[in-house]
Amino acid sequence: MSVLTSQDNVLRQRLEADLVEVRRVFAGELQSDLDCVNDLAGHAQRYHGKMLRPMLVLATAMAVEPTCETIEQKYLVAAAVVEMVHLATLVHDDVLDDAQMRRRGATINHLRGNEAAVMLGDYLISHAYHLCSSLGSPEISRMIAHATNTVCEGELLQLANRHRLDLDEPTYFKIITRKTASLCGACCGVTAELSGCGQKVAEALYGYGETLGIAFQIIDDVLDLTGDQDTVGKTLGQDLVKGKLTLPLIHALGACDEACREELIGLLRSEGGEGLSEERAGEVAVRVREVLLEWESLDYAREKAVSLVERAKLGLMENLEDTPARSYLLGLADSVVTRRL
Amino acid sequence: MSVLTSQDNVLRQRLEADLVEVRRVFAGELQSDLDCVNDLAGHAQRYHGKMLRPMLVLATAMAVEPTCETIEQKYLVAAAVVEMVHLATLVHDDVLDDAQMRRRGATINHLRGNEAAVMLGDYLISHAYHLCSSLGSPEISRMIAHATNTVCEGELLQLANRHRLDLDEPTYFKIITRKTASLCGACCGVTAELSGCGQKVAEALYGYGETLGIAFQIIDDVLDLTGDQDTVGKTLGQDLVKGKLTLPLIHALGACDEACREELIGLLRSEGGEGLSEERAGEVAVRVREVLLEWESLDYAREKAVSLVERAKLGLMENLEDTPARSYLLGLADSVVTRRL
Repeated sequence: MSVLTSQDNVLRQRLEADLVEVRRVFAGELQSDLDCVNDLAGHAQRYHGKMLRPMLVLATAMAVEPTCETIEQKYLVAAAVVEMVHLATLVHDDVLDDAQMRRRGATINHLRGNEAAVMLGDYLISHAYHLCSSLGSPEISRMIAHATNTVCEGELLQLANRHRLDLDEPTYFKIITRKTASLCGACCGVTAELSGCGQKVAEALYGYGETLGIAFQIIDDVLDLTGDQDTVGKTLGQDLVKGKLTLPLIHALGACDEACREELIGLLRSEGGEGLSEERAGEVAVRVREVLLEWESLDYAREKAVSLVERAKLGLMENLEDTPARSYLLGLADSVVTRRL
Repeated sequence: MSVLTSQDNVLRQRLEADLVEVRRVFAGELQSDLDCVNDLAGHAQRYHGKMLRPMLVLATAMAVEPTCETIEQKYLVAAAVVEMVHLATLVHDDVLDDAQMRRRGATINHLRGNEAAVMLGDYLISHAYHLCSSLGSPEISRMIAHATNTVCEGELLQLANRHRLDLDEPTYFKIITRKTASLCGACCGVTAELSGCGQKVAEALYGYGETLGIAFQIIDDVLDLTGDQDTVGKTLGQDLVKGKLTLPLIHALGACDEACREELIGLLRSEGGEGLSEERAGEVAVRVREVLLEWESLDYAREKAVSLVERAKLGLMENLEDTPARSYLLGLADSVVTRRL
């Protein structure tokens, strides 16, 4: 075993142990004296998935403080804050999408109704800010709130463009940069701010997180069209049903011939002209995949994601010391495009 | 005109002018580079109503800083923050209640769909915290977030008790203290903290705001049962439809005879045993009012509100200097129980 591999293993073990602590901080913050609240908050904790955002915080903290052997509490708190913000957006997203399945289980809205899901999302976001204020830094509170402002803007822009088959690539990128990448950027930016590592490194880290976030969302959108539901663990084809045009479809509509374009538009519009019905989604998805393969639109989207990941990695390599944590962040960026769930 | 009346007029004019500034801070914070976001945020500003919560902040600021002739910016910001939190809860409440009408206009969910309403509420709450962080005080951020945690708990407790005809008075008070009174308490508490007026006065002010908030919600619940829709400006009888038992009904169910109790339970349950249908609400409301009058349950609720207002006023008189602002706060408490909308 090389020295590097051994160091990598130590780092991975530290990250695993730190994630356990993050979950503890997360669960502790949500404790209430009301059983009905604890019961519902317990459901939310089933939503923990890959924990990409806490991982970004923890690995960034290790990268900017390479000599610290144990992580400081403030980073564990920040990691729990970003995870809480993220879960709040998932819970409200599922209400917006009327989704039935998430992380291989039923969604809160499906189990307990939209009302409980709206309130649970509010409870999570409120506790995220509450926990954040315990860091004692108005600047960190501002950064987190700025990120959530931006996430909401992205969601609202997406909502305003639903069922628009003429959605263009710049608008698509504006949507996903705001709704997904801004929080990933904040994960690294907040950690940099907490460490006091200086503006240049902080900007590089924010850029890394944001760029990785854009790539992550592109792949998420590709998987919604091509993934295996059992592997991904959530209802697929929802973007078609909800009239959300994503990068592969935007590419296909621009690249294909007129006959194919007309066929695609016909497939994506329902009889009423509004959107695709849940019933037709299955057969439509099969044909859409064929078209996307024919016009190499899935490859186009994946290549965009790959080049974004390369850009994210370059920013890190140019601005951060070569440490096991930096290697881990580089690998994390790669995993965003190779993932199957 | 007595000296006191003249001072009162000066104070009212200052409050009016300050409220204009609060609206300006509010609108400025919500500005986005996206038209679709500004369009939706514009709707939210129609929701400004009596602006009780900003008024609590402004009048409290004047009461604790009686020698200041113009209000400091920090209080205007705090007033905009609490109004933003409040409007966020109204927007989500209307989703929860499926309400059609608010402030004499159509609700956001009715106009633009539940999805836009969920996201607009999130946008408002996110900006409330963002604006709050500009005050530069982690303690203020913590107090606001603690209040919103508590509001959510109140809403979740209410949700868990829907359609429960055995809801008792202590649980009712727990619900309304959390969902409504905690934010009113925070209006005064945050202002006290910003002024540095000292713990004893701060606690008295928090107690005043919280107690006034409980009374306010009792009267809100009475008006839902007895009010005139055109005067109140929102859909009435919604508590019956949504299976929310409020103080007059809790009293009547406990005070009336067995025959009446059975009749009430029959009226409030639908055929399926779940709750009252929208269609039956009108005729049921008429009969429920008769029963509430017969058993003096509306008077019971109003008297509770009056005694709470007296307690709120006493706390102020014992702990604050006699100033025009204190007189205004005493009058504000009285108006909570005499209001018709």
